[in-house]
Amino acid sequence: MTLIKEKIEQARQILREYQIDCWLTFVRETQITPDPALQFLVDGDLTWHSALIVSQAGPAIAIVGAYDRKSVEDTGAYDEVIGYVQSIRPHLLKTITKLDPKSIAVNYSEDSEVCDGLTHGMFLTLNKMLSEIGFHDRIVSAEKIVSALRQRKTRWEVDRIRAAVEATEKIFDAVGKFIRPGRSEEEIAEFVRGEMSSAQLQPAWDPRMCPAVFTGPDTAEAHYGPTSRRVEPGHVVSMDFGVKVDGYCADLQRSWYVAEKKGASVPSDVQAGFDTIVEAIETARRCLKPGVKGIEVDRAARRVLADRGYDEFPHALGHQVGRFAHDGSALLGPEWEKYGNKPFEPIEAGMVFTLEPRLTVPGKGIVTVEEMVLVSEGSADYLSSPQQKLVLIES
Amino acid sequence: MTLIKEKIEQARQILREYQIDCWLTFVRETQITPDPALQFLVDGDLTWHSALIVSQAGPAIAIVGAYDRKSVEDTGAYDEVIGYVQSIRPHLLKTITKLDPKSIAVNYSEDSEVCDGLTHGMFLTLNKMLSEIGFHDRIVSAEKIVSALRQRKTRWEVDRIRAAVEATEKIFDAVGKFIRPGRSEEEIAEFVRGEMSSAQLQPAWDPRMCPAVFTGPDTAEAHYGPTSRRVEPGHVVSMDFGVKVDGYCADLQRSWYVAEKKGASVPSDVQAGFDTIVEAIETARRCLKPGVKGIEVDRAARRVLADRGYDEFPHALGHQVGRFAHDGSALLGPEWEKYGNKPFEPIEAGMVFTLEPRLTVPGKGIVTVEEMVLVSEGSADYLSSPQQKLVLIES
Repeated sequence: MTLIKEKIEQARQILREYQIDCWLTFVRETQITPDPALQFLVDGDLTWHSALIVSQAGPAIAIVGAYDRKSVEDTGAYDEVIGYVQSIRPHLLKTITKLDPKSIAVNYSEDSEVCDGLTHGMFLTLNKMLSEIGFHDRIVSAEKIVSALRQRKTRWEVDRIRAAVEATEKIFDAVGKFIRPGRSEEEIAEFVRGEMSSAQLQPAWDPRMCPAVFTGPDTAEAHYGPTSRRVEPGHVVSMDFGVKVDGYCADLQRSWYVAEKKGASVPSDVQAGFDTIVEAIETARRCLKPGVKGIEVDRAARRVLADRGYDEFPHALGHQVGRFAHDGSALLGPEWEKYGNKPFEPIEAGMVFTLEPRLTVPGKGIVTVEEMVLVSEGSADYLSSPQQKLVLIES
Repeated sequence: MTLIKEKIEQARQILREYQIDCWLTFVRETQITPDPALQFLVDGDLTWHSALIVSQAGPAIAIVGAYDRKSVEDTGAYDEVIGYVQSIRPHLLKTITKLDPKSIAVNYSEDSEVCDGLTHGMFLTLNKMLSEIGFHDRIVSAEKIVSALRQRKTRWEVDRIRAAVEATEKIFDAVGKFIRPGRSEEEIAEFVRGEMSSAQLQPAWDPRMCPAVFTGPDTAEAHYGPTSRRVEPGHVVSMDFGVKVDGYCADLQRSWYVAEKKGASVPSDVQAGFDTIVEAIETARRCLKPGVKGIEVDRAARRVLADRGYDEFPHALGHQVGRFAHDGSALLGPEWEKYGNKPFEPIEAGMVFTLEPRLTVPGKGIVTVEEMVLVSEGSADYLSSPQQKLVLIES
C-alpha cells in the first residue's frame, strides 16, 4: 500500500473518531501556496483550483485541473478523479451536494500551522461557492483531523525517520573529527554540506541554517547561519542539523568542547552544564507518554535546569518531527501565548518528538543536545543514540 | 542597494499610488506555510508569529521571534526590528496603534495566488488582535500592492531572469543533440538533470516535471513527469523546462521532429503546425504592450490557430515569470472562471510573460514553443532567442 492510500484510510478512521462527515482540502498553485496536508494526499503539486475530498463513509474524490488528473489517478488512492478545464465550481458543488455532509472540515487553525494550509482568499472562494447550495455554515476546522493524521505515524513513516536519524548521526560522527581550533563555523558547515552531498541527502530545513554551527561565547542566536567566527581553545561548539530521507526529517543537536590547552580536560562548569542537559532530556523522556500534556514534560525538564541555577531556555523543550523538522500540533512547551493550545494537546502513541534543552556556560558557549524519541503505549523511546559524553577536542 | 531594500522602497511608492497607509505581512513557520510575498521582505524563513510592516509615510518595522531578529536586522531594510519571546501581540498592537493607519493591507486575494499568502487561521488571529484596538475594520486586501511589487521588475530582477533564460537555452541546445530514436523521455530528462547539476543550477519548478518531456502522439498531458516512452521516427518531441538564477526563473519550451526515415524532411502537417505556433507567438508579442488587457493578447494568438482550423489550447497563452515560474496576477488568458479577474488586469511595463500556444498534429505529437518577453513602454521584446525553425533529428 502506498503512503497516500494508507494515510487516506487513516483519515477515514479519524473522521469516524471525531464524527466529522467529510474532510476537504482546497488548494491552487501549490508550489506558490502549499498546504502542508497536501503531501499526504497527492504526489507532487496541483496547479488550478483543486479539491481533495475524503468522506467518512463514502468515497475519496479528487477534483483537479485536467492536466493534473493523470498524476492524481496514479496514486491509486481516489475512488474518483475528476478533471476540468474552465471551472471547478460545478464539479465541486455537484459532488458536495451528493455527499450531503453535515460537517465539512477544511484546513484552517489558529493554534497549529501544520493544520492551517487554507489561505484566506481560498477560504472566501470556498465559502462563497458553498453558500450557493446553502452549505457554507457546515464548514468547520480540520485541525483535529490533520493533527491526528500527521502525528500518528505509521510504521512506514517511523522507518523513514529512523533512516534519517541514522544518516544524520553518521555525519555528526564525521564532523566531530573535522572540528578543531582555527576552523570557522562556515568551514564546518561546508564540510557537513559536502558529506550530505556525497551521501545524496537533503537538509531537513532551510539549507542556510542546516547545519547551524555555533562556537564559543556570545555567538549569534539560534536560527542564524554559520559565520566566519573561528573555533578557539576553551570554546563549546554546538551544531543543529538533520537530513531528510524519503521526505521525512531528523533534527538533532550535539555539543563538543575544545581543550583550553594541550592535555587539558573538560572544566567543571562545562561538564556540569552538559550533565544537566543530559539529565533534563532523560527526565523529560521518562515523563513523556500517552495521556500526559506537553506542558508537564516541558516543566519537568525546565525544573532540572532551574534547580541547578541555570536560566530557563527561551523556547519549547521539544516539537514533533515528520515531513517538516517542526511538525505536528502537540508541543512540549510552556504556556506562552505564541504556542496557543499546543502545550495542552494530549500526547498520543505514534508521535515523534525532539527533546532539546539548552543552557549557557558563561565565557565558554552554549551547551545544547537534541535527541529524538518515539511515543509508544506507556513510554517514549530514543530514536537517536543519545549523546552521553561531551566530546573533547584536542587543542 | 540590496533587493529587499529596493523592494521595500518600491512598496512605499506603490502604497502612495494606491493611497493605502500600511502593508502588513503576517506569517509564522514560513517553511511550512510560506507567504509568497516574504521573499521580497526577508532573507530566509521566520519561525514564530512575525509581522513585517511597511508604512507609506512612516518607518518599515519588523516584529519577529527573538531568534530571527539578527537575520532580519542584517537585511538593513528595516528602520526597527523588534524581537520577542512570549507573544507578538503587545508589540504588534503598540506599533499599529502608534502608526494609526486608516487602511491596513494584508496578503489575501481570491483572484491571485501570489497575493494570497495569509492563511485563514492567521487571518482570524490578526482580526482578533486588531479588534482589541478597534482596528479590525481597517483591514483591506493587499492584492494591488503585492501584484505591483511582483510584476514591476527592477533592472536587478530582469538581469537575473535574463541569466536564467540564457542558462536554460544552453541546456536546450545540448539536449537537442542528445535526443534520438530509442531514447526514452526519462533518459532525456536525466540528461537534462545532469546538465543542470554540472552547471550547479536549480530547476524552476517541481523537479519531477522540470524538465517535462513528451514524445510522439497520445503522450501524457502537460504537468506530468517523463515516462519510459521512447522516441521513434515520425515523433514530434517537445520539452518544457527552465532553471533558476539567484531565485529568478526561466520557463521555455522547444519542439523537435524526428525524421520518419533516413534523409526524410519535416512533413507538411508538422511544418504547418510549427509555423502556426511561431506566428501565434509573434502576433501575440506585437499585441502586448502597456494598457492592453491579457484577454486581448490571448485572443489574438488563439485566433491564429482557429483561422487554420486547429483546436484552441486548453490553457492560457501566457503567464508572468519571476521568483516562481508561474508568477504575478495579470495573465494572458481567456475569460474562464478559474482565471478570475487575471485576464482583465491591465498590462504594465516591467512585466515578464511567457507566450506558449500549443497544438496537436494527429499521429505525430504536440507542437509547442514557449518564449519569454519583457514588456516595456510601447512594446514587448523577447528575453529568449525565439525558436524560428523546427529542428530535424536524423533517424
